[in-house]
Amino acid sequence: MTDLAHFDAGDVTLQSGVVLPGVRVAYVTHGRLNDARDNAVVFPTHYSGTHASNAWAIGPGMALDPEKYFIIVPNMLGNGLSSSPSNTPAPFDGPRFPLVTVRDNVLLQHRLVTEQFGLTTLALVAGYSMGAQQAFQWGALFPDMVQRIAPWCGSARTSRHNWLFLEGCKCALLADAAFAGGDYTVPPVAGIRAFARVYAGWAWSQTFFRQQLDRDRLGLPSMEAFLSLAWEPSFQAHDANNLLAMLATWQAADISADPRFDDDLAVALAAISARAMIMPCRTDLYFPSEDSEIEVAQMPNAELRVIPSVWGHMAGGGLNPDDAGFINAALAQLLATPV
Amino acid sequence: MTDLAHFDAGDVTLQSGVVLPGVRVAYVTHGRLNDARDNAVVFPTHYSGTHASNAWAIGPGMALDPEKYFIIVPNMLGNGLSSSPSNTPAPFDGPRFPLVTVRDNVLLQHRLVTEQFGLTTLALVAGYSMGAQQAFQWGALFPDMVQRIAPWCGSARTSRHNWLFLEGCKCALLADAAFAGGDYTVPPVAGIRAFARVYAGWAWSQTFFRQQLDRDRLGLPSMEAFLSLAWEPSFQAHDANNLLAMLATWQAADISADPRFDDDLAVALAAISARAMIMPCRTDLYFPSEDSEIEVAQMPNAELRVIPSVWGHMAGGGLNPDDAGFINAALAQLLATPV
Repeated sequence: MTDLAHFDAGDVTLQSGVVLPGVRVAYVTHGRLNDARDNAVVFPTHYSGTHASNAWAIGPGMALDPEKYFIIVPNMLGNGLSSSPSNTPAPFDGPRFPLVTVRDNVLLQHRLVTEQFGLTTLALVAGYSMGAQQAFQWGALFPDMVQRIAPWCGSARTSRHNWLFLEGCKCALLADAAFAGGDYTVPPVAGIRAFARVYAGWAWSQTFFRQQLDRDRLGLPSMEAFLSLAWEPSFQAHDANNLLAMLATWQAADISADPRFDDDLAVALAAISARAMIMPCRTDLYFPSEDSEIEVAQMPNAELRVIPSVWGHMAGGGLNPDDAGFINAALAQLLATPV
Repeated sequence: MTDLAHFDAGDVTLQSGVVLPGVRVAYVTHGRLNDARDNAVVFPTHYSGTHASNAWAIGPGMALDPEKYFIIVPNMLGNGLSSSPSNTPAPFDGPRFPLVTVRDNVLLQHRLVTEQFGLTTLALVAGYSMGAQQAFQWGALFPDMVQRIAPWCGSARTSRHNWLFLEGCKCALLADAAFAGGDYTVPPVAGIRAFARVYAGWAWSQTFFRQQLDRDRLGLPSMEAFLSLAWEPSFQAHDANNLLAMLATWQAADISADPRFDDDLAVALAAISARAMIMPCRTDLYFPSEDSEIEVAQMPNAELRVIPSVWGHMAGGGLNPDDAGFINAALAQLLATPV
């Protein structure tokens, strides 16, 4: 893996019409571009993750093998490494950071891979969760460039229920007066704690906790230990405005929000000509497999392959070897399939 | 229906060992006790509900017909009508109100029906959600008295995941500094708002919102209208300490927490000799039908009948005529079955 690099995109007109100055996309790459320039993979990051969160799926002998592929991992805006509330100067700092959409992210990634690397084809765009949303968006916007997509535990458009789950998390954070409209001087610890505890109920499945896999597989002696030692610190490590910026991106995710699709999701899904492997998890509470079934039925070249796991949404995050193996095998098969 | 009456239980030693003085159980009754004194039904209330919330399931021609049955609806402690943080004097007022368990509620109800009405048999104990938890508890503690139980959308013990969902709601409320450790002078509006928005994601199902039944069946033009006009006011109407007291009851619910069962849920479930009709909803997110299946398998005289609805947990609340009809038909069949 390379060191973290930055693509300077300059002043960018966002989907909202706001012009955000000095936009940067932080990214890493794994492997080398081949002479034919046809072995590039884009693997965007997920909510509250960074390029490091994707590392589990990349390695020698794996589907995303740096010996074979040139794998670009762009950090999603808002995550603290790419342009974010926490690193953007006034007047777009903190709570004044504008809405950045999945489409905005993908258009920036498109500039990165074309302007920086001169690519005209991508062997694959893969992603988990909000990374999956970016993969769908890539497929819809650049059908002539994207040969394959592999979105897992994600959707082409954030469902109304998924929006509501996020709204609950957001309101929990905002209930903390220490948030101070985003102009806090010390982190709103109680708000982030509430945010994390609300989130925890959604991220795993009912069955995961019934089977006490938090204890037996994550090695935590109690629910309280799980929450306070394992779960909350990962959110407390984030800037609150960054958490809310990425959440806004997620709530607004909709590949059909583009003039060529006119907000018609069926039209946008039909435009994804790439060979697609769609992998929801059977027990995901916010990207339920039923949503993926409905989307796959509207895509011309897509296969639904449900991850048979009780790890809920977290099945896609690489923590559970069985699920990671399932995803890796599917990616390998997809990459081996000629297009 | 009678006017609201109060059973004065005096000083009560709670399961925790705390002695709560001047305990009162507010209740209403429907219909009349027959000469044989064998037509009594106990129908306890659910979280954030009152006796009025149960009225939809009672009426002429329905299973719970006041012409045939003497139906007692006791209000759960903490709901603002029975002893609650909001109506209990110091030193047990507000946040100093002690933990009241499902078992405490049921033992008080047992005193109500024996001391006040001289009953020795109950034709049925029925209940929704936390009311279902009370029905399970009745069956386990008083097998010689309870002929039938009908718990729907509930469980004999709060699952670890259900506990976590509630913990998220609680933390969202507590994140509001206006809560002031429970000694607020004005209601913690932002905290209750957050509580309600977190709760909303759990109460219905993903499919309910995908099918836009909030719009088409509840008549609300948008998700925001649903939340701010229909959902939040029902929680803002409650005292925050009352919401948290009932939540603590829920988190602690466990019919096996009794010396005779020694915390062994299998033993407690096996003790429920009453004819039981257990009705989870297929899409309930916090009392999943899988939990009910597991419980029914450990009960000697129980039938599992899954409510085939996309209304999630709310299927049991009487809002949707199809679900209300399903429950009513099952209750009628159960009551018609000799024991």
